[in-house]
Amino acid sequence: MNIILLEEQEIKNNRVSLTDRRQDHILKILRAKKDDLLKIGLINGPLGIGRITAIDKKEVVLDLELAAIPPEPPPLDLILALPRPIMLKRVLTQAASMGVSRIFLINANRVEKSYFTSSLLTEQNIRQRLLLGLEQAAMDTRVPEISIHKRFRPFIEDYLPANTSPDDPKLIAHPGTEKQLHQQMTNRTEARVILAIGPEGGWVDFEIDNFRQQGFKTFTLGPRILRVDTAVPALLSQITLLRNMA
Amino acid sequence: MNIILLEEQEIKNNRVSLTDRRQDHILKILRAKKDDLLKIGLINGPLGIGRITAIDKKEVVLDLELAAIPPEPPPLDLILALPRPIMLKRVLTQAASMGVSRIFLINANRVEKSYFTSSLLTEQNIRQRLLLGLEQAAMDTRVPEISIHKRFRPFIEDYLPANTSPDDPKLIAHPGTEKQLHQQMTNRTEARVILAIGPEGGWVDFEIDNFRQQGFKTFTLGPRILRVDTAVPALLSQITLLRNMA
Repeated sequence: MNIILLEEQEIKNNRVSLTDRRQDHILKILRAKKDDLLKIGLINGPLGIGRITAIDKKEVVLDLELAAIPPEPPPLDLILALPRPIMLKRVLTQAASMGVSRIFLINANRVEKSYFTSSLLTEQNIRQRLLLGLEQAAMDTRVPEISIHKRFRPFIEDYLPANTSPDDPKLIAHPGTEKQLHQQMTNRTEARVILAIGPEGGWVDFEIDNFRQQGFKTFTLGPRILRVDTAVPALLSQITLLRNMA
Repeated sequence: MNIILLEEQEIKNNRVSLTDRRQDHILKILRAKKDDLLKIGLINGPLGIGRITAIDKKEVVLDLELAAIPPEPPPLDLILALPRPIMLKRVLTQAASMGVSRIFLINANRVEKSYFTSSLLTEQNIRQRLLLGLEQAAMDTRVPEISIHKRFRPFIEDYLPANTSPDDPKLIAHPGTEKQLHQQMTNRTEARVILAIGPEGGWVDFEIDNFRQQGFKTFTLGPRILRVDTAVPALLSQITLLRNMA
């Protein structure tokens, strides 16, 4: 926890009282004392500073100073063929820590149907994993928006075109491709990239054809087959690097 | 498991009999049958193909055809401040799947001393995590060499200079830096990169000074603080991208 994240309704007169795991963290890990300054963020709102005005086993009270404007939403959306639950847990936290605006969890031919009934897929459990990522990164307060799409075709044919711009660069990782990311991500200053990452075993041809029809360019990650908890940070960081070099 | 890895002593007259989890995988996950061809690799040796000559609940027998030459060792070594065991498990597998030749697990001011007594740090447990990564990537048979360094100064002053070339580009992730990886990794065609990644909470000044004296250039990962299981794939993939673009 590198930042203390607060819900809006917790704050009264620029003051918050913490009595949960955040209090625990401030007491036991940070070993903070009165008048210490802590980095704080209002969830989906601005970053700021909290000064400790009271600290004991009952509560930690912070006086808050919040910036005027929230951080910009990260210029990236992630389409993810729903991974197995243990992997999804990690990937949600990783993606939130690296910065994505939206995550579309979708069905694909090689996604096990049972994954959609995982208890992880409740709003509360997903949110918890995302907040862990934001608490880690300490730079961002925006909780990525998650949507779950149990049917591939309505997602690719209707939902996606209605919720993205034709101008957004769209990229899909696919081993059967010669070109690499830097060759396919030609427009590096565009506001938003849509990145699609497939299931274990990859996309099937029908899926690739559909993505191509929606303007996606395929690229290869290289000859090694990566697990999704390795592929997601690998690709998000490559996109960031290409943008920073542009 | 995207490749079946074999120990040299298992092979007799270009034939191997499997009776363990690899047999299980071939039977239950691949649902293979007689005469099917499987991708195989000799650990620290060449890649090849195995043809199933017998398959039942007792054993799976493969006739092997191995290439003449093993794959090249990956041109990257990783120095890692020893992470907490649960994280180390993941990172060993991730790093092996992405390709590193050597991993130096070292002490640092902000490494918890108890991590060095973890049961994970036995040769057998480490090897198991590394083989999982190789089985995932399906491209490489070389098990990364692991060495454990409980004392920082003998490592940085003696061991490292004796085991690396002054010409190897050396890079260390450090938030207190303005320059980014692509600005510091100027020589992108060199045979070998040495990459150092710090503990939760980062390196202390004394450590950074010592790395600098050994020719390391500091770079920032960006404003977000990443966990080591996110930072490792992020940085390995950025180095690969910069090389591919060179």
